[in-house]
Amino acid sequence: MPELITLDDIDDLAVGSAFLGTGGGGDPYVGSLLCKEAVAAFGPVQLISLDELPDDSSVFIVGAIGAPTVLTEKLFSVDEAHCAVEALETLLNRKATAIISAEIGGLNSVMPVAYAAMRGLPLIDADGMGRAFPSINMTTFNVYGVSCTPMAIGDEHGNVALFKTADAKTAEDLARPLVAAMGASASLSCYPMTGEQAKHSALPSTVSAAIAIGAAIRSGDRAIPAVDRLVQTLASLPYYSHAYRLFDGKIVDISRDTSRGWVFGKCIIQSLDGPSVAEIGFQNENIAVRVDGVLKAIVPDLVCIVDRETAQPIPTEKLRYGQRVAVIGCSASDLLRTPESLACMGPAAFGEIAEYVEIERLNQVEA
Amino acid sequence: MPELITLDDIDDLAVGSAFLGTGGGGDPYVGSLLCKEAVAAFGPVQLISLDELPDDSSVFIVGAIGAPTVLTEKLFSVDEAHCAVEALETLLNRKATAIISAEIGGLNSVMPVAYAAMRGLPLIDADGMGRAFPSINMTTFNVYGVSCTPMAIGDEHGNVALFKTADAKTAEDLARPLVAAMGASASLSCYPMTGEQAKHSALPSTVSAAIAIGAAIRSGDRAIPAVDRLVQTLASLPYYSHAYRLFDGKIVDISRDTSRGWVFGKCIIQSLDGPSVAEIGFQNENIAVRVDGVLKAIVPDLVCIVDRETAQPIPTEKLRYGQRVAVIGCSASDLLRTPESLACMGPAAFGEIAEYVEIERLNQVEA
Repeated sequence: MPELITLDDIDDLAVGSAFLGTGGGGDPYVGSLLCKEAVAAFGPVQLISLDELPDDSSVFIVGAIGAPTVLTEKLFSVDEAHCAVEALETLLNRKATAIISAEIGGLNSVMPVAYAAMRGLPLIDADGMGRAFPSINMTTFNVYGVSCTPMAIGDEHGNVALFKTADAKTAEDLARPLVAAMGASASLSCYPMTGEQAKHSALPSTVSAAIAIGAAIRSGDRAIPAVDRLVQTLASLPYYSHAYRLFDGKIVDISRDTSRGWVFGKCIIQSLDGPSVAEIGFQNENIAVRVDGVLKAIVPDLVCIVDRETAQPIPTEKLRYGQRVAVIGCSASDLLRTPESLACMGPAAFGEIAEYVEIERLNQVEA
Repeated sequence: MPELITLDDIDDLAVGSAFLGTGGGGDPYVGSLLCKEAVAAFGPVQLISLDELPDDSSVFIVGAIGAPTVLTEKLFSVDEAHCAVEALETLLNRKATAIISAEIGGLNSVMPVAYAAMRGLPLIDADGMGRAFPSINMTTFNVYGVSCTPMAIGDEHGNVALFKTADAKTAEDLARPLVAAMGASASLSCYPMTGEQAKHSALPSTVSAAIAIGAAIRSGDRAIPAVDRLVQTLASLPYYSHAYRLFDGKIVDISRDTSRGWVFGKCIIQSLDGPSVAEIGFQNENIAVRVDGVLKAIVPDLVCIVDRETAQPIPTEKLRYGQRVAVIGCSASDLLRTPESLACMGPAAFGEIAEYVEIERLNQVEA
């Protein structure tokens, strides 16, 4: 784990986060520009492990909420993010002493770096998903006992709404139409927690994992092709170690529907050297991949579409007809595979009829 | 002005409020049941004039927000209302010392009585509209300098959202989709103000006016027909004194569209003894009446449809083909007729092309 996130780490973090975003979470490229600007202005960000975090820390989340298609077109500012956090700090009458990411996938992994730089606060090497998910309630914070509310949602005009709801799913249901009214993009602070709560509910080491994944993808001009290097690196990391190159091919069909604040769709990939076809469904993030109708990976395990040559992750909004891609699947943290977690963010939460089966079982090589 | 609102006043208040609701604001009948229950349980409510209100009072609004069609089907509770007010009291760190109605028209005139009874607080004989309007920003509080936010919106499950927005129109724009997500009906507290602010922005004596109007309608079995008695009573009241029986006839067409949290529509009334036709457009409330194409009254002046025999006001959601009705128009407070008020709640705010002309000018008898 690096002790500081410097300017040099931000591109790797952005690329690694795009991979862990499994197609969603908002393309972190735009966010990485904001992040570089903040780190250049305020200095590097201290990265601390969950172990180092004092139990009585006051941990705040900062993030973006909305449709990825809009999030990537609109440049966020740390001031806008601060508007949400500050409203929550005022309500709770306590100041943040550390920042944590809600999700390590996509835009929400770089936003907190920029914000932590501006506030001069440490960033915790952990998050609440170990990937990206489309809903506020789909976090290990929620599953393992941290209240989602009070939650603050703010827009670029300084308008803020503070929510107190019965549960995280209700917070999601009430926030989503508000976010749509704010232009399908807003800043968010939720799950305010103590250091002790973070230790019991967060997924450790995901920020450093994202940086390592990004570095693997970016060091592609070697003897080992970039996609293979990526799979090797995943295999060496704690959660993502069951990693597979599931399919190679060309995109032959892509459909998207942006409605109710999300992007729903489907991508069909045809093999380059045979009749095989892979089908990937998404709701902001990729949900499942089937090859010739056979399930190869399903949420909460990760399904990522990357460029076949460079291994650069391709977010759903950038999938195009004719692209040559590889489909990478890897395991999620065991904390996402418990019955409690699966009830919250397993296949059924995305309208999938299939039961969850671990990616390593789906891809077992028969003896 | 009565010094107390007792059980005996509530039916009159409800009927008078239905009239001042000009078709919208939610049928106060359901609210009047809640109100009677609260007054029976907690005792009568002290009614105080704006003059009697100490400058340093802490004045809170309590009300309902949503589509009238839903509001009348869902029984509110004072607990639900308290949830919104309490969230605002906690945020502001001060307790209400007096309650005021946002609008004297419809449900929002009886809800505050029930709530004031429960809290043992005085109700101010005043409101922010002198009628009903479909939007939170359409109040004299807004026009004459009171901030709409912080504002609290709560539902029957105890979920609450607190808003801080740049202006009242933004509060309205952001609250409306949230209310839709809460089931098109929620409780509301906004425009928290001091006694001094209330004196500068509220319309005095509207609660007692509603009770007087209700009493006039209910004392119908006399020598004077109920509709005439109603017009006479209006003529004796401060704001509503330019009062006219504008049309008599039978409803021959009625259309309604419940969308975006409001009820839009049009009602056509045919004369009983001639070819004349009156057309009334509404957005929750009646906006304008034209007789044979000639404008007879337009918002913010009041346009009310009442039963031709009993003078009972008929809310838009209860208008039916074949009903025999009279159309009553009367003047709004001068505070609603200023350029600032007309910019906020004049004809243009409802998509009307016609300029505002005072009802007394539109119905001038030529010499």
